[in-house]
Amino acid sequence: MKKKDMAPREFSGPAPRGRKGLLIIYTGNGKGKTTAAFGAALRTLGRGHRVAVVQFIKGQWLSGELNALKKFGNQIELYPLGDGFTWNTKNWDNDVASAQKGWKKCTDLLAAHKHDLYIFDELLYVLKYRFLSVKEVTRGLSLKSRDSHVILTGRGAPRALLSMADLVTEMKEIKHPYKKGITAQPGIDF
Amino acid sequence: MKKKDMAPREFSGPAPRGRKGLLIIYTGNGKGKTTAAFGAALRTLGRGHRVAVVQFIKGQWLSGELNALKKFGNQIELYPLGDGFTWNTKNWDNDVASAQKGWKKCTDLLAAHKHDLYIFDELLYVLKYRFLSVKEVTRGLSLKSRDSHVILTGRGAPRALLSMADLVTEMKEIKHPYKKGITAQPGIDF
Repeated sequence: MKKKDMAPREFSGPAPRGRKGLLIIYTGNGKGKTTAAFGAALRTLGRGHRVAVVQFIKGQWLSGELNALKKFGNQIELYPLGDGFTWNTKNWDNDVASAQKGWKKCTDLLAAHKHDLYIFDELLYVLKYRFLSVKEVTRGLSLKSRDSHVILTGRGAPRALLSMADLVTEMKEIKHPYKKGITAQPGIDF
Repeated sequence: MKKKDMAPREFSGPAPRGRKGLLIIYTGNGKGKTTAAFGAALRTLGRGHRVAVVQFIKGQWLSGELNALKKFGNQIELYPLGDGFTWNTKNWDNDVASAQKGWKKCTDLLAAHKHDLYIFDELLYVLKYRFLSVKEVTRGLSLKSRDSHVILTGRGAPRALLSMADLVTEMKEIKHPYKKGITAQPGIDF
């Protein structure tokens, strides 16, 4: 990149070498975590690569992005919550079993080595509720191929995952429209 | 949303009323700002709405997302840097003129009321360099229709824009792969 393009700092400096799949974490209390993960999916799909997404919390995926992703046919596989596992929260054992099922889907995908990017949306939320242990997750992530990327989203990323990750961005809420009494907006929120 | 879905807090609580275009700012030193903006574009496109994007810094848009967005035909209009305005940085007056040209493109788009979402990518960077005044930008933003959304990205959002915005997320760098000597990765970085 030429200097005159005024590249932001993170894109300047000597280019390091080698291809390596990244473990990326989008965490924090602000909006934009799932949105950024879907932005990364868009980038990956545009390069002709394959993406798998497992959803751990309902309400994050909205009709907009789901319709849009359909354009990419079998380049993308989506596993929404409820597809094999569902939360109950009145029954701890059931929820632990559901988390296990959801995570099994993730590890099966990782072990199959068929995708270039895996998004486990709101997995960190499940860890926060302790339906799944951090140890199981770190062990499961080791199944991924060397070249593939994994994005985890959710609040409250545990330290072991932060230390394992290659890229961590905290999305911090500075201002939120709902607090000003503005409703969810089509195209932005759903 | 039902409680048992374990919805993250930002999606719970009483739903406020009314349709209103939002001014959204993704700022901070972390990665994910432009990515989240493109994720929002994906959501908007998926709902059949129209998106216009003006790029102020080269190197943020990469072949991946550009290829992907082509699938949406004339639902999306992209105005990359160099298309009418270019940075020189050896000549202050030239750069100010370029910033004016870029911002004129933005205000023309806003005033035309043809799109549902406008993304002015890295506009905040240009403000930081003072090629454009904050006052010009706040004035220009008032041209947008009541229903349309605007996303501004870049580091160092000025206070006047933060106070005007409806939603602000700071993307904070916690960990960056380049610092560990890992190269830019296809599908993730380009």
